Amino acid sequence: MELDVKTLRVAVVGATGYSGADLTAILSRHPRAELCALFSSEGGKHVAFSGVHPSLSRRRGPDVEPFRWESLVDSDPAAVFLATPHETSAEIAPRLVERGITVIDISAAFRLKDPKVFESTYGFVHPAPELLQTAVYGLPEWAGEALKGARLVANPGCYPTSVLLAVKPILDLLDPAIPVVCDSKSGTSGAGKKADLAFSFSELSENHKAYGVAGHRHEPEMRQELGFASETPFSFVPHLLPIVRGMLSTIHVSFAVPETVESLTQRFQRAYSDSYFVTVRPHGDMPDIRSVALTPNAAIGFCLRDGGRRAVLVSVIDNLLKGAASQAVQNFNRVFGFPETEGLA
Amino acid sequence: MELDVKTLRVAVVGATGYSGADLTAILSRHPRAELCALFSSEGGKHVAFSGVHPSLSRRRGPDVEPFRWESLVDSDPAAVFLATPHETSAEIAPRLVERGITVIDISAAFRLKDPKVFESTYGFVHPAPELLQTAVYGLPEWAGEALKGARLVANPGCYPTSVLLAVKPILDLLDPAIPVVCDSKSGTSGAGKKADLAFSFSELSENHKAYGVAGHRHEPEMRQELGFASETPFSFVPHLLPIVRGMLSTIHVSFAVPETVESLTQRFQRAYSDSYFVTVRPHGDMPDIRSVALTPNAAIGFCLRDGGRRAVLVSVIDNLLKGAASQAVQNFNRVFGFPETEGLA
Amino acid sequence: MELDVKTLRVAVVGATGYSGADLTAILSRHPRAELCALFSSEGGKHVAFSGVHPSLSRRRGPDVEPFRWESLVDSDPAAVFLATPHETSAEIAPRLVERGITVIDISAAFRLKDPKVFESTYGFVHPAPELLQTAVYGLPEWAGEALKGARLVANPGCYPTSVLLAVKPILDLLDPAIPVVCDSKSGTSGAGKKADLAFSFSELSENHKAYGVAGHRHEPEMRQELGFASETPFSFVPHLLPIVRGMLSTIHVSFAVPETVESLTQRFQRAYSDSYFVTVRPHGDMPDIRSVALTPNAAIGFCLRDGGRRAVLVSVIDNLLKGAASQAVQNFNRVFGFPETEGLA
Amino acid sequence: MELDVKTLRVAVVGATGYSGADLTAILSRHPRAELCALFSSEGGKHVAFSGVHPSLSRRRGPDVEPFRWESLVDSDPAAVFLATPHETSAEIAPRLVERGITVIDISAAFRLKDPKVFESTYGFVHPAPELLQTAVYGLPEWAGEALKGARLVANPGCYPTSVLLAVKPILDLLDPAIPVVCDSKSGTSGAGKKADLAFSFSELSENHKAYGVAGHRHEPEMRQELGFASETPFSFVPHLLPIVRGMLSTIHVSFAVPETVESLTQRFQRAYSDSYFVTVRPHGDMPDIRSVALTPNAAIGFCLRDGGRRAVLVSVIDNLLKGAASQAVQNFNRVFGFPETEGLA
Repeated sequence: MELDVKTLRVAVVGATGYSGADLTAILSRHPRAELCALFSSEGGKHVAFSGVHPSLSRRRGPDVEPFRWESLVDSDPAAVFLATPHETSAEIAPRLVERGITVIDISAAFRLKDPKVFESTYGFVHPAPELLQTAVYGLPEWAGEALKGARLVANPGCYPTSVLLAVKPILDLLDPAIPVVCDSKSGTSGAGKKADLAFSFSELSENHKAYGVAGHRHEPEMRQELGFASETPFSFVPHLLPIVRGMLSTIHVSFAVPETVESLTQRFQRAYSDSYFVTVRPHGDMPDIRSVALTPNAAIGFCLRDGGRRAVLVSVIDNLLKGAASQAVQNFNRVFGFPETEGLA
Repeated sequence: MELDVKTLRVAVVGATGYSGADLTAILSRHPRAELCALFSSEGGKHVAFSGVHPSLSRRRGPDVEPFRWESLVDSDPAAVFLATPHETSAEIAPRLVERGITVIDISAAFRLKDPKVFESTYGFVHPAPELLQTAVYGLPEWAGEALKGARLVANPGCYPTSVLLAVKPILDLLDPAIPVVCDSKSGTSGAGKKADLAFSFSELSENHKAYGVAGHRHEPEMRQELGFASETPFSFVPHLLPIVRGMLSTIHVSFAVPETVESLTQRFQRAYSDSYFVTVRPHGDMPDIRSVALTPNAAIGFCLRDGGRRAVLVSVIDNLLKGAASQAVQNFNRVFGFPETEGLA
Repeated sequence: MELDVKTLRVAVVGATGYSGADLTAILSRHPRAELCALFSSEGGKHVAFSGVHPSLSRRRGPDVEPFRWESLVDSDPAAVFLATPHETSAEIAPRLVERGITVIDISAAFRLKDPKVFESTYGFVHPAPELLQTAVYGLPEWAGEALKGARLVANPGCYPTSVLLAVKPILDLLDPAIPVVCDSKSGTSGAGKKADLAFSFSELSENHKAYGVAGHRHEPEMRQELGFASETPFSFVPHLLPIVRGMLSTIHVSFAVPETVESLTQRFQRAYSDSYFVTVRPHGDMPDIRSVALTPNAAIGFCLRDGGRRAVLVSVIDNLLKGAASQAVQNFNRVFGFPETEGLA
Repeated sequence: MELDVKTLRVAVVGATGYSGADLTAILSRHPRAELCALFSSEGGKHVAFSGVHPSLSRRRGPDVEPFRWESLVDSDPAAVFLATPHETSAEIAPRLVERGITVIDISAAFRLKDPKVFESTYGFVHPAPELLQTAVYGLPEWAGEALKGARLVANPGCYPTSVLLAVKPILDLLDPAIPVVCDSKSGTSGAGKKADLAFSFSELSENHKAYGVAGHRHEPEMRQELGFASETPFSFVPHLLPIVRGMLSTIHVSFAVPETVESLTQRFQRAYSDSYFVTVRPHGDMPDIRSVALTPNAAIGFCLRDGGRRAVLVSVIDNLLKGAASQAVQNFNRVFGFPETEGLA
């Protein structure tokens, strides 16, 4: 922890992807961060700083270079944000941590604790399984003191962020015999910046679909963070919305004992009374994506049904911000002891 | 039943709304229907036939007149399609039935059997409760012989159509203690043709939201047709998609006894082997809205999870066609003994 | 010309692209066409007939095979529709014509008369320059008798179709010193079915851009069909709309002598009095894309300005139908002496 | 002018419209502005500060009150921003100016100099014609010193902003005999926050249309600021895009004498070398709406054609920011002698 320094040198690897560009834009305005280097994993591309994000068109900063380990090290960063593919993060992060450089990883490389679950989920043997144990799962509203001084932060997935924020406050109230059903819908930017017919405008406009129905990579992550055993019933189905940014999870839960509006309201409010970025709506008032898009905020709505035996929760975030870039900066602030809202409010 | 006539005179009341215009376009090409009159409930408006629907721009037919009972009767229809508000349908339909004119009602006026449920759902006392019993609920794939010669057909709601088609084939397999969860998403045309800030492009583009979470009008209709008692757990949440046409329901079910891919495949295929308009996809292949938009078809996908104890179903329709206009014509064909696909395939 | 046959065997090469799929759907319902073979230029792909187009999901017809010349010839077609890249059409069409098979080519391979202009526009030497002279430019409303019995029809480009239909009726009234300015906007399907980041939903939603500003391939085609010499001032700028289907051209013209509403109305009405697919709107009533999308129709609006010295024209089509597939079928009907609306109205 | 004060008290009338909400969000972060009161012209509505704009959901500020003159005066503002209908601005602004309160008016009430042109354009006699002469037309890049200390600033229209920024640098090069053609496309937010079927999602998605073809209200404003006499040929056609935010104007110009890339580049660069918010692209590189949406920036592209005798210009802005709210804040900064980028960069 460097509580006494004024600003920290930070680098971003993967600065031209959608999350990486948002992250770069936030960091360029962060009063405690100095962008010392930007890299792109898209081989060979050299992008001017002003071209990284529309909001930077008239601003100055480092250009984006093709990624080279030596250039990264030479830029002498105190912290490195990885907005890279899982495989790349899994390879780079350990080397950075070894050098005493703090890593905030937006990929899924360090989110799962169990190397076997990691392997079956991501399809390759984790190259640094020991770090899976020490990496801090960076859902800042629930990470407590663990983030303070952390050397490796695993930034949560976008779907898990939206689901965990809604479910964790009432986790102990749930009936373990009834499945928690998470019906989540995401904008197309969640799939990343890529040439893919399935993500073309002509295929997605005026369309909507479920995907990953047989099992999505974010499901083990949610189970882990909810403390669900493999036999606990849980149904997560992601969908693709014809919008670019934003995510909405509709979550159907059943309680062991009927709840009241008051008890649930209290639960949610208590959970987020100190959280600047999470808003809890009054009972029955469900937030839409518009209310959080382009902001670092999450909003949660809840509605009791069936005499209090069940509830529907709606949780919304901007998948690129609270689901990736701004959450990474929240984590950065927590790691280095800055106010959580620094550079974000 | 007029099996011997070549064509029937048909009228549409509410021909300028979204469903009504699609219905008019279909009927204008139907080899057994002759459009004898078109009415609009939008007071005072007179619309040329060619202006009702883009596909009619060069075709001839009756202009749309402001609705008057006398004009409707004078047009001497054998069948009248009502694409009108619930209140209007509830008032007009009985008078038509009394005169021996067949009514196919796209509104919700005659879908519920129980007048008390109707009243609590739609907010007014039903003016012709006796007709609630005799009206035929027109989900043609499940109505059996009841449609043949029916005098009053209640065309199902769009959400119920998408949900019932998916759930009915496996209804007896479900675990009654676990809620069936229906997470449905609809295009904006479902809200009708209206001036409403909440449905403006500026509010809905790049947005998505849940609505009616505390209880939507289509829920009692689904419960009735699924034979669910009021205490049977059931959770239906509709959402608004930033698309014009189409509806996708994601349905999460639990089985009393674990099912296999084979058993479920057989169930679905047997249910729809004779149905021209319902396609069942192979296990795990989930249909998107694009695959049925602008067609009279429904498509159903299913995916087993948790060792066969649970399944996710995805059901898609065009809300204005299988969810309204083309289903009304299917019903018309069934009532008068025409081939079900007449005018639709 | 085979005026006496009941149906003709037809094949489509490129049946899985956006235009090709629409074309296949139309031909499958055409009372005079029998689909004898479907091919895809996407190597190796085998697609079931029911998967070509949503409207065919329950219909029967030939599957789509990877293209092989022998298979095409063996299918014994009387006519072949080419919805293929320019290079492919330029190579296949001459061989088909040689065998006495009628070709309707949706690509640009045979639209330009001058081989030099072709080469500078499309970047390769035309392999059959002699056919450029004999190919009939298939804008049916203006082709007169030339289409009757034609062996090779060059289906016009989408932009030229929208511009020519609006400008040709008033061509001789224009002031040759003042540029005709065509500001055209197209849906994304015009770019074809392809994996390209620039056409991804994430890049195009809530976006709009001009392209090809320095010179678009459709400009020489328009100049040729308007009879414009290279020195005649003409400014065509295409733009990409965040919609899938449809095209709108706004055309700004100046007259040699001031015109009146009456004279212009007469011009347009006379030009299209016999045309089923072109609607002329009353003065000042500008058509939107919605009014023609998903139809084979074009609509034209015009508005006089500056005391009759100038006018703004608005011309709309569905780029995949009147701009490609349905126009190809209009041409097919004309070539074989069928009513122009056969299979389309 | 209050150059010595640290912050100024500012009020916004019309804070809940689209422009007003963006303006309120900007001012809430402006280091020199203190929001002292917010009003809505939407009668009777009381909106919490946190509900004005998504980015304010966790911030504190004055609630929005129904507009009352006394409340406005009592809030003791140094400057008032009017994001109100023309009629309201025309009535309120003179009374504020009289009290020595600076007015920045986003409506069109004070943009035109000639009361007769105002009347024929906006349909009512201007209540304070003398102020039309003294109001400063606030296109900051071209207003020179006039904004310094101005008491009444007329914020330009969105279409005029996009067109003037592109045309003014080359105005004296144009051939006066050839019409300047401005083909402009706007997002739907330009029409304001209103319940109107024509602006519903169902009507506008997958659609595009020209409007105001016979003469749009922004045309006299452009003519005035370009110094065009009524007989100078000029053709402006606005269009509605299916996007919420952003505007693109494609402008076709002809030169009296052929120009070169170098001369034109120099012209544009010189015009905006000191302008933080206007970017000039290299020759042939046309900006899209995405590159400026959600930013206070304008971007201009140009492309010579026909041997330098003609050019196509493309100018893009966010209609709610550079076309309204952020431009109003630029004007505010200029009036009070703050750096132009204060609160915006």
